[in-house]
Amino acid sequence: MAKKMNAFYAQSGGVTAVINASAAGVIETARANSKHIGKVYAGRNGIIGALQEELIDTSKESAKAIAALRYTPSGAFGSCRYKLKGLEQSKAQYDRLMEVFQAHNIGYFFYNGGGDSADTCHKVSQLAETMGYPIQAIHVPKTVDNDLPITDNCPGFGSVAKYIAVATREASYDVRSMCATSTKVFVLEVMGRHAGWIAAAGALAADKSNDIPVVILFPEVIFNREKFMTAVKEKVAQYGYCSVVVSEGVHHEDGKFLAETGLKDAFGHSQLGGAAPVVAGMIQEDLGLKYHWAVADYLQRAGRHIASATDVEQAYAMGKAAVELALKGRNAVMPTVVRKSNKPYRWTVGEAPLSEVANVEKMMPMEYISSDGFSITPEGRAYLEPLIAGEDYPPYKNGMPNYVTLKNVLIAQKLEPYKV
Amino acid sequence: MAKKMNAFYAQSGGVTAVINASAAGVIETARANSKHIGKVYAGRNGIIGALQEELIDTSKESAKAIAALRYTPSGAFGSCRYKLKGLEQSKAQYDRLMEVFQAHNIGYFFYNGGGDSADTCHKVSQLAETMGYPIQAIHVPKTVDNDLPITDNCPGFGSVAKYIAVATREASYDVRSMCATSTKVFVLEVMGRHAGWIAAAGALAADKSNDIPVVILFPEVIFNREKFMTAVKEKVAQYGYCSVVVSEGVHHEDGKFLAETGLKDAFGHSQLGGAAPVVAGMIQEDLGLKYHWAVADYLQRAGRHIASATDVEQAYAMGKAAVELALKGRNAVMPTVVRKSNKPYRWTVGEAPLSEVANVEKMMPMEYISSDGFSITPEGRAYLEPLIAGEDYPPYKNGMPNYVTLKNVLIAQKLEPYKV
Repeated sequence: MAKKMNAFYAQSGGVTAVINASAAGVIETARANSKHIGKVYAGRNGIIGALQEELIDTSKESAKAIAALRYTPSGAFGSCRYKLKGLEQSKAQYDRLMEVFQAHNIGYFFYNGGGDSADTCHKVSQLAETMGYPIQAIHVPKTVDNDLPITDNCPGFGSVAKYIAVATREASYDVRSMCATSTKVFVLEVMGRHAGWIAAAGALAADKSNDIPVVILFPEVIFNREKFMTAVKEKVAQYGYCSVVVSEGVHHEDGKFLAETGLKDAFGHSQLGGAAPVVAGMIQEDLGLKYHWAVADYLQRAGRHIASATDVEQAYAMGKAAVELALKGRNAVMPTVVRKSNKPYRWTVGEAPLSEVANVEKMMPMEYISSDGFSITPEGRAYLEPLIAGEDYPPYKNGMPNYVTLKNVLIAQKLEPYKV
Repeated sequence: MAKKMNAFYAQSGGVTAVINASAAGVIETARANSKHIGKVYAGRNGIIGALQEELIDTSKESAKAIAALRYTPSGAFGSCRYKLKGLEQSKAQYDRLMEVFQAHNIGYFFYNGGGDSADTCHKVSQLAETMGYPIQAIHVPKTVDNDLPITDNCPGFGSVAKYIAVATREASYDVRSMCATSTKVFVLEVMGRHAGWIAAAGALAADKSNDIPVVILFPEVIFNREKFMTAVKEKVAQYGYCSVVVSEGVHHEDGKFLAETGLKDAFGHSQLGGAAPVVAGMIQEDLGLKYHWAVADYLQRAGRHIASATDVEQAYAMGKAAVELALKGRNAVMPTVVRKSNKPYRWTVGEAPLSEVANVEKMMPMEYISSDGFSITPEGRAYLEPLIAGEDYPPYKNGMPNYVTLKNVLIAQKLEPYKV
């Protein structure tokens, strides 16, 4: 490229324990290639920052602060749930984006998110063709739901899987201690609206040295109260106790979730919560067993203190690879994790065209779910185990993780105000 | 003592991340003093194990397994919620206890629990006087609620405090990232039936480098919906978001808990749960703000992976001190943590008579709660901070904490069966 262009980076959708590690990968790699890439501007609150010309100048952050992103959960520049519609429906917004890009000499667009974001990124990548603006758009994969296609797994998932596996093991040890006279069933509600990847991780609580009874309720399996109660009853008869991991997305045959609040987010998805107390209440009603329940909610996706080292490494690698792909002239692509082998676990970085990524939801293969519908198969375990491997502790100060809060200095605006 | 007596050890009430560290302290110290103390028998499922003559022979466990208790959460021998009544009301049970102790040459009684257990331990300590059976009973303090008197703090509390402080910080970072377009208020429900010690730990999420808005609902402060909404509204206006930490024990003026399930445990306490969704619903109703909520439940007290090193050290020290007190001929006492200074934090082991410990609940001093009732004072912070200091990570295997499950071999019974 003749003229050195600046880069735009934004975080999109629900944040994770490691999305900032991807940000560090993008920014550090861009800094290392300052001959070819100018400044990296980050969108304040994601793509909204681009539309409103609220661009954070990441060059104002020290190398130490950017390095600290690697171990800081959440979205350091702010994220958003805001989806751009198609080029035809939202032409004014794309015009505005181009105007902002042009005003700030932006030639690279790095968008860090899930399926909806891959779609937006894909549309931005077409601006060169459709609107004549020269830009390279690269998507950086991120989602705790692990539902992006082509990539073997998504950064963000491994850490939430580790969180849920550890929490289920610890709580199961607790219930096992108490079950003679007190709680017999522990119910943990986990995220995963449509795909049971996170719920599946609960099965990792058990292994050869930990014979722990875990019953999983997957969103892929229609809820059958009778079969579920039989499974719980059998486990309690055999072990004296039982742990249940229930996905927020578990639903009845008519598609109705076990618990719905009725709220919807900007993408039109129902905001869920409360499957655990519903399931616990059923257990009390049908089996008369004493229960406890927990809802992990944000704790699971923000739990950087128990992040998977594999996940952190891959999140960083995806950010780094995105910049490297841009430097190679690529457009409309997403770096991917390619699994080479399970034992020992080996992976490399691959590449996928956004046309094949956008709006495609990868479900959990049914061969990962055991035939009774309440656990995982050895294949499922073989897939999951490497993703939670390794610990990557943040530094601590006064007993607390010493996460970074950036200065987030906005650059001077050049255009007319625009309000999303 | 002329004849070498065996010891009995039991875990009582809700387990913690570090009660097994106290068990390790008892067993390792008894092993180191095998000239004076015979075997250590552990009650299977607590005191019930003594009554039913289900005694676990801890000498069958390797030194490595006992050492692993230091980093294993839950109660390795099983715990129970079972309270012995007074000597007069339950004479048959005390007779049975003596019978079992006599049959197995037990001269030391180490009881690891909270206020109710201290009371039982005190009654056992009187058997020498009242029933002529020579036994020394030492209570080993344990409770996440931190509500035992005299001791500066209780083993178990520091780790749950650290868990809640870390979770609140991490979730707050998450909400901060999302608040521009999505969740504005995050509500976390924590344990603490009558005392707000655990809820107070949520305030540690904020510090000089982390300006995080946290509103705490203490059980010590009568819930005032209007004042609470004003506090949340102000935080959201100033920061764009707010975290709320609500104790399960928060109640209305008439004493009714925000959420009651109606269940009661063996000690007659209401089994609580569900304050978070109640508070979240109120926020939605009164302020129209989008919320998320989590209920930490067992995860907080079983979360050994994020235990406080100070807590682990003190839990072990209490177990060790209990045996040392026994060897010095003491009866009816409990080792305590005595705070010597805050900065640097220094503590030593003290001793309290059980007559002053049993059935006395230590509330949080009102001078630790800020004048608005929603946070802690600098004095409260000075008290709490040392208790969460230091990390003490368990070993990991395949990405999971490698906790120990003991063999728990029962010794041969000598008496007639007895069913609790």
